[in-house]
Amino acid sequence: MSTTRYRSDDDDLDGFYRDIAEHDLQPLWEMRGLLTPTPTVKTLPHRWTAGDLQKLAQRSGELVPIDRGGDRRVLALANPGLAGAPYVSSTLWAAVQFLQGGEVAPAHRHSPSALRFILDGDGVYTVLDGDPVTMARGDLVLTPAWAFHEHHNPGSQSMMWLDVLDLPVVAGLDAVFFEAGPSEDADRSTAPRSSSERRYGQGAGLVPANGSAHPHERAHSPLMVYRWAETDAALTALLELSDTGDAQLRFRDPTRDRDVMPTLRCEMRRTTAGTRTVTDRQTGSRVCAVLDGSGTVDIADRTYTIAEGDIFVVPSWATHTLCATTALDIFTTSDAPILEALSLYRSEQVAP
Amino acid sequence: MSTTRYRSDDDDLDGFYRDIAEHDLQPLWEMRGLLTPTPTVKTLPHRWTAGDLQKLAQRSGELVPIDRGGDRRVLALANPGLAGAPYVSSTLWAAVQFLQGGEVAPAHRHSPSALRFILDGDGVYTVLDGDPVTMARGDLVLTPAWAFHEHHNPGSQSMMWLDVLDLPVVAGLDAVFFEAGPSEDADRSTAPRSSSERRYGQGAGLVPANGSAHPHERAHSPLMVYRWAETDAALTALLELSDTGDAQLRFRDPTRDRDVMPTLRCEMRRTTAGTRTVTDRQTGSRVCAVLDGSGTVDIADRTYTIAEGDIFVVPSWATHTLCATTALDIFTTSDAPILEALSLYRSEQVAP
Amino acid sequence: MSTTRYRSDDDDLDGFYRDIAEHDLQPLWEMRGLLTPTPTVKTLPHRWTAGDLQKLAQRSGELVPIDRGGDRRVLALANPGLAGAPYVSSTLWAAVQFLQGGEVAPAHRHSPSALRFILDGDGVYTVLDGDPVTMARGDLVLTPAWAFHEHHNPGSQSMMWLDVLDLPVVAGLDAVFFEAGPSEDADRSTAPRSSSERRYGQGAGLVPANGSAHPHERAHSPLMVYRWAETDAALTALLELSDTGDAQLRFRDPTRDRDVMPTLRCEMRRTTAGTRTVTDRQTGSRVCAVLDGSGTVDIADRTYTIAEGDIFVVPSWATHTLCATTALDIFTTSDAPILEALSLYRSEQVAP
Amino acid sequence: MSTTRYRSDDDDLDGFYRDIAEHDLQPLWEMRGLLTPTPTVKTLPHRWTAGDLQKLAQRSGELVPIDRGGDRRVLALANPGLAGAPYVSSTLWAAVQFLQGGEVAPAHRHSPSALRFILDGDGVYTVLDGDPVTMARGDLVLTPAWAFHEHHNPGSQSMMWLDVLDLPVVAGLDAVFFEAGPSEDADRSTAPRSSSERRYGQGAGLVPANGSAHPHERAHSPLMVYRWAETDAALTALLELSDTGDAQLRFRDPTRDRDVMPTLRCEMRRTTAGTRTVTDRQTGSRVCAVLDGSGTVDIADRTYTIAEGDIFVVPSWATHTLCATTALDIFTTSDAPILEALSLYRSEQVAP
Repeated sequence: MSTTRYRSDDDDLDGFYRDIAEHDLQPLWEMRGLLTPTPTVKTLPHRWTAGDLQKLAQRSGELVPIDRGGDRRVLALANPGLAGAPYVSSTLWAAVQFLQGGEVAPAHRHSPSALRFILDGDGVYTVLDGDPVTMARGDLVLTPAWAFHEHHNPGSQSMMWLDVLDLPVVAGLDAVFFEAGPSEDADRSTAPRSSSERRYGQGAGLVPANGSAHPHERAHSPLMVYRWAETDAALTALLELSDTGDAQLRFRDPTRDRDVMPTLRCEMRRTTAGTRTVTDRQTGSRVCAVLDGSGTVDIADRTYTIAEGDIFVVPSWATHTLCATTALDIFTTSDAPILEALSLYRSEQVAP
Repeated sequence: MSTTRYRSDDDDLDGFYRDIAEHDLQPLWEMRGLLTPTPTVKTLPHRWTAGDLQKLAQRSGELVPIDRGGDRRVLALANPGLAGAPYVSSTLWAAVQFLQGGEVAPAHRHSPSALRFILDGDGVYTVLDGDPVTMARGDLVLTPAWAFHEHHNPGSQSMMWLDVLDLPVVAGLDAVFFEAGPSEDADRSTAPRSSSERRYGQGAGLVPANGSAHPHERAHSPLMVYRWAETDAALTALLELSDTGDAQLRFRDPTRDRDVMPTLRCEMRRTTAGTRTVTDRQTGSRVCAVLDGSGTVDIADRTYTIAEGDIFVVPSWATHTLCATTALDIFTTSDAPILEALSLYRSEQVAP
Repeated sequence: MSTTRYRSDDDDLDGFYRDIAEHDLQPLWEMRGLLTPTPTVKTLPHRWTAGDLQKLAQRSGELVPIDRGGDRRVLALANPGLAGAPYVSSTLWAAVQFLQGGEVAPAHRHSPSALRFILDGDGVYTVLDGDPVTMARGDLVLTPAWAFHEHHNPGSQSMMWLDVLDLPVVAGLDAVFFEAGPSEDADRSTAPRSSSERRYGQGAGLVPANGSAHPHERAHSPLMVYRWAETDAALTALLELSDTGDAQLRFRDPTRDRDVMPTLRCEMRRTTAGTRTVTDRQTGSRVCAVLDGSGTVDIADRTYTIAEGDIFVVPSWATHTLCATTALDIFTTSDAPILEALSLYRSEQVAP
Repeated sequence: MSTTRYRSDDDDLDGFYRDIAEHDLQPLWEMRGLLTPTPTVKTLPHRWTAGDLQKLAQRSGELVPIDRGGDRRVLALANPGLAGAPYVSSTLWAAVQFLQGGEVAPAHRHSPSALRFILDGDGVYTVLDGDPVTMARGDLVLTPAWAFHEHHNPGSQSMMWLDVLDLPVVAGLDAVFFEAGPSEDADRSTAPRSSSERRYGQGAGLVPANGSAHPHERAHSPLMVYRWAETDAALTALLELSDTGDAQLRFRDPTRDRDVMPTLRCEMRRTTAGTRTVTDRQTGSRVCAVLDGSGTVDIADRTYTIAEGDIFVVPSWATHTLCATTALDIFTTSDAPILEALSLYRSEQVAP
């Protein structure tokens, strides 16, 4: 915050500065420190490797019983630019969550919106307001704001997945609410297919004729899980229609013109082997997880190798280019719906 | 139109009535003929049987070469209440269209919106603005307003389907425009799967991240065909969640909160054997086609047996009840989006 | 409806035509009679002069006591192209209503939407769901669908105004509902200013912070009257910013992006003396009333002189040009919101 | 951020914690520090008195020539809870700006949205994208995101007003862009009435029939200034319809269902002498300026006397009650549109 003092030998001015400070005021003769030509971004580009994440999550499972540590066993991705805050970017919270066979994570709900993207394994259930949803590799599972959710792992294999929340934004707006569920134990119900999928996940444009009573009061998609089999087939079909070797799907509310949740955009991108994407940048931050394939990503002036299971973050307005060695399948979530809702979204392609 | 003349022996009044008539005015001292407590509906309940439709369509194929008669070979369902107008109801045009092996129906486009629902057979292609769409039993194919469309039957089997248009409404609004395609011959291209399906029909909530450039200028669903396999599976899933033996799907624009087209609502209903539905009525008219099953339908004070391939019409505000002998799959299209857009839609359940 | 019979000597074909007619079907080998390149419009251009309207309305007041004839004393403008139907165009009903000093017209409500535009005089009240609204020259008063409304004239002077309803459209959709008010007598309450104006008519963009409980259930503007003083000032201000000598205001719901009612658009246009407007045409019909000034209007291939108090109708897709001898103030209402809602609205400027 | 370490004597755990820190991860076995039952708010209730603000602004005018200090001469209200940040709350920036006779503040534009509310005086012009807007006591003037704006004071009297920006939110989203205008000098044009007012400010529901070409691309109200005379009259009219002695207006986009800008809600409230308002609270913060009157405000557990020209801040979820000694006119701006857009808005009345 630049507060130019023009003549420091000016006693009147010194006295004046003391007076205004005493009255909880600050002199801002120019606002150039606050109003910069382009965004001043603390979030740094960063990549976490699958190997590190898996090894440390595994160790957390061995060392920290879920009953020992409270609600969840998560390792939060802490962006090195954010001075120790447990946030992957200025606007997003991301973590790997690890649940061993037989473990449960009891119900709670909160005003921040959350999602899970499963990078490997299967078998865990997330129970959403009573509706059990299986989770498996490549699936995207929503946990909308203020929906009770709990996890249980009825099998014997551990499972790890990526959690993303809009927590920094909700906290920055002083709007965090939280409520624990009724029980220390989790709902252990299972079902081959969630009610949500049976009602809203059957096919594009097919919706129950008698939908929910007050749809205008629902802020999020009524479909809680987007299955990999469909996502995979959709990417294949899109690539058939494209000549760029690069296709990108958006996960959306199947009943209206909206992202899956009011604060989080979710996309899946497939870049064929040998393809280098156009360079783009956008306001707001993105968290990306490599489901499959290998290659490199350029973020601003840094280049990272990426491989299956890696997670990386693209800060606001940083340029971003993918180069696929083998075909890359990358899940991306971002705060773009927030920036769009506030008319702050800008994006552009950048000449190489 | 009731124009009460109070005292017919009143010479002044007689002279006055002559004068106003000469000046293109009409005396309306009371508007009770125009403003009735409930709708005065000319459309009558009616059912056309599959047997009659198939037999007569077949004969039209034998007697009327498609090159003889112009653009299309259709038999329009003419409601007996509408004084000879070729309309199935006051707001909808419906017809069976018949295309023999090897025949083509050349391209044209029009401001009325149209749809095809296929009651039997397969093999014909509708080409929509260059995108070939196969048609088969149970499929719903859209022909949005002002999209060029043409049909060709590359096989050797004849095929018949139901056409529905909003023509009476568009004509009533003095807004019919029509344009013939560039060629007398039809585009005979085929494809295993339309571009429309590959882009927008892959799964609920999965949409290309870079959609059309000006989506707010598109009035209709970007998905041109809803396949029976998905509709069937969706009805099965909905019935699993219901205890009424009655499930109803709505076909919708998969990208936003809209019906498939601005003037036509499309729904598919499955009523299990032995189920009698609740009685309902709504403003606006409905055309229903029985894809499968048998039973009866009560419309106002009439009862019709219905079986596979039958088509019936439900007039505005007439009560309507289904009774399924074997499981009924019924396709319905209506003008409900028009009535909703104008805040004229009313519906209610009626005690038996 | 063209139904080409190719060979009239063909006995098979004759028999076939008899058979299909017996089965309530019509052969439509070509649809050129139904699907025309541009709209086939029965509504004719027409103008009713102020002199005729006033003289005949006056005589109706003398000859037809309001208690003699029912709810209303109105002379409906009957378009000469519509075969005796009491409609000013295929989609609009228009009439002059005449109420003498001391008379009342009791309460009723109906699903058609209505409006009043006052061409001369003042003193009558329309009571809208209990809210008394004074009427005076140049005012636009809404009577939204299903709002109870009644008129009373507490003074001694007669008053005449223009009524317009969307009745032909609502009747065509089989959606007319009507209900008489509780009493034969009218609510005779008066107020210097309606509640509606005090709540929503105070200034552009000023709205009660705690609005109605369910605004999404309201189909129409919450402001029931648009006063001439404000309309006049707004036209003056718009003309200051224009160099065409032609300014046009739209009356709108002050709380959202909508016309005043779902079926009727209302506009006020001022064309300065000596100005000839650009020629335009649009789908749907327009009814225009001259509040002030004189000149000519060209509609399709006809030219009418127009002066204060005249009313004219512009059919769908007919070209329309104004030429002002003295400054013209013209009120126009149209069905444009219907055509827009159904994506059937087309408009264009036409080179002279 | 609570990161429970269960057994500090556990060497494995110590090593594990070191390892995860080295890999930019944080262990969050419980999220209770991040996910609190109700918002953890750093912003404190606070009130700045008119006397202090006027005296210090006056001194800034004497000590800091506008050419000395850059673009603007503003004293930012720095909330005592925010550790020295120049923000009035976690989401809003507020300041008093002071411009002496003959001074100018040159053009710039920025992605944060701004508004001015004038507590006293008149005579300064804000020029918005070339349209000169006079400012006077009680007026609300918008400076939408990315609109060029500059101020000039053609008279001889100093003038001071309240500036509010959404800067903390835009900065938190890494979306600040800024551009200086073409000239060091300001556009000194004047006009009795801005184009914006002449086009969109003439009366409720009166809008040019041919509006802007791409209204869906405009994020803010097209009306740039809301004049006190109209606001005052509207409050008077609302109070006539109320029996609570408390009326509240919202300033809105006069053409659609939106707040004046995507991030800032503006309201004006009048509380009659002797009235104590209901106690409310809401998520997000509010900045309030007393235009007229005196009384007290309770915010959370603190009570402040308030008088003409005072400014106070209500933190998120803090209870808030007004008590008017003489009739209070209070302008309030808040971040409520942000919270609503993200479905994070909660509000409630609290029993006393």
